[in-house]
Amino acid sequence: MSRVVAVDMGGTLIKLSIINNNQLVREKVYPANAQGDFDGVMAQLEQQLYQLIQADGWEVKDLLGMGISIPGIVDIRQNRVLSINQKHVGATDFDFNQWARKIGLASIVLDNDARAALVGEQQFGAGKGYEHVNMITLGTGIGGAAMIHGQLLYGKHYQAGCLGGHFSINFKGAHCNCGNIGCVETEGASWSLPRLIKSHPQFADSTLASAELLDFYHLFHAYRQGDTVAKMVAHHCLDAWAAGIINMIHAYDPEVVVVGGGVMKSGDIILPYLQNRIKQLAWTPCAPVKVVTAALGSMAGCLGINHLLQQKHQLANV
Amino acid sequence: MSRVVAVDMGGTLIKLSIINNNQLVREKVYPANAQGDFDGVMAQLEQQLYQLIQADGWEVKDLLGMGISIPGIVDIRQNRVLSINQKHVGATDFDFNQWARKIGLASIVLDNDARAALVGEQQFGAGKGYEHVNMITLGTGIGGAAMIHGQLLYGKHYQAGCLGGHFSINFKGAHCNCGNIGCVETEGASWSLPRLIKSHPQFADSTLASAELLDFYHLFHAYRQGDTVAKMVAHHCLDAWAAGIINMIHAYDPEVVVVGGGVMKSGDIILPYLQNRIKQLAWTPCAPVKVVTAALGSMAGCLGINHLLQQKHQLANV
Repeated sequence: MSRVVAVDMGGTLIKLSIINNNQLVREKVYPANAQGDFDGVMAQLEQQLYQLIQADGWEVKDLLGMGISIPGIVDIRQNRVLSINQKHVGATDFDFNQWARKIGLASIVLDNDARAALVGEQQFGAGKGYEHVNMITLGTGIGGAAMIHGQLLYGKHYQAGCLGGHFSINFKGAHCNCGNIGCVETEGASWSLPRLIKSHPQFADSTLASAELLDFYHLFHAYRQGDTVAKMVAHHCLDAWAAGIINMIHAYDPEVVVVGGGVMKSGDIILPYLQNRIKQLAWTPCAPVKVVTAALGSMAGCLGINHLLQQKHQLANV
Repeated sequence: MSRVVAVDMGGTLIKLSIINNNQLVREKVYPANAQGDFDGVMAQLEQQLYQLIQADGWEVKDLLGMGISIPGIVDIRQNRVLSINQKHVGATDFDFNQWARKIGLASIVLDNDARAALVGEQQFGAGKGYEHVNMITLGTGIGGAAMIHGQLLYGKHYQAGCLGGHFSINFKGAHCNCGNIGCVETEGASWSLPRLIKSHPQFADSTLASAELLDFYHLFHAYRQGDTVAKMVAHHCLDAWAAGIINMIHAYDPEVVVVGGGVMKSGDIILPYLQNRIKQLAWTPCAPVKVVTAALGSMAGCLGINHLLQQKHQLANV
């Protein structure tokens, strides 16, 4: 039996996937009620789970277990969320083990979403064949994860590898929402994009002044139309991402860095820019580091957390 | 037999120490002829070694082995120097194993100097009792090392942990001698200090304008005398070091960061400043990270490389 339900617990959308033998069988996406209490989020998840598996005539006992990837710092031994930014705040008080027992799940694993995505990409996607892989996900926030000799890096408090978005790259810059100064997120996450665009001296003359939303979609659209402000702000973000990736390379010494996140829809602009800048600036005397686009999109996290659950069972059965 | 000769192969001075049962028996410091070829450096080392051990009536065969710590990137499996900045450049072509066999050494280990210092501090000094330790050494360059779960971090090409001085903290800043932009070294190593001081707009009015040397000794001396320029430049460097340490904390998730290097003679100013700033800015939701001054000075590297050699022998004898 290798049927697993993988849960990608985003702040906006929650995705449930049934995975069997590393293949997606069925999936369902629904809006996260992240403003409510977290007990409510989990009660909703329980109902969604029943609906999903009943469609195939299965019950909870027919599952090997459930894997949950979540955008926070996770104690993987205790299955506790230690810290989570803004959304799903009640998760830090939630007892996932007790919940799993209550609904009859044989097993549950929990991990950070970028770590799960890295495992997915390393096992089945853009990092396949490598044992030293870093992942960076560019979006509302900037996530990260590091694998060394085929093992995820966790550190003392399960933070290692995950805070690449909070490397300071502008130590006299603006405050980040994490409390630090000039983080990669402050200089290039989509939450900081409106500030970056509006503070440009020529903002009023830019097509972005009349854009519906100041997000990366509109930024790269204006970039392609030749908008000067869009180009300058995009280069600011690209340079910030490159500095963040170079800091990961200098920190973890990988063979390959996988770049993911919705913004990679503009990968035709982003990837060659990052590759070129990293080739110029990173200190890698032994071998250049490959910089590649994530191959699996939002499936990476599901396949990754499924793999971590399978691995836990293999270890338990040795 | 646990007699080891530990070699601290600095760019300016080379120190040989005889260590027996983790205690210093005898040491010798001599100027490194780093301008000559590296074969010459090693021939000189051989002569110094004979003189040192003969003083106790020993021969090379009476040693368990030799440990060499060196300010470069080291392949610890092959005992090869992969990359070294400016001084001892010929070391990358040198065959240390062959040299050891030639002079009759039973064993030789080689590692990066900051890694050796970290091991020394973690076994016998300021990091004792901890398994998750980072080290940063502030000086001409800025070195670093990381230990997670009691194991040194190496990565694919033996660079992991060692390049903390080359985290970019000012991604639109000046070029570093490593090729990157705005590294911690560019903003706060003693090699960049003359540029930082001279570019201050009030430099001409500062007591530093007549200083013999623009180094950290003179900077902190002027700071104590109330010199405004010295204070501003010192705070620039302190903020750069803090950003570098925060990036290490975010990268490696340690319990304790050990700060070493000659500049810590002004530790009474430096340590509380760093502690305060790191407490304010680092994202450590589980537990604050201790920031402490190195306890062993230049002995840390000798005791550390001795420990790595002893460990290798223990593993070989299991």
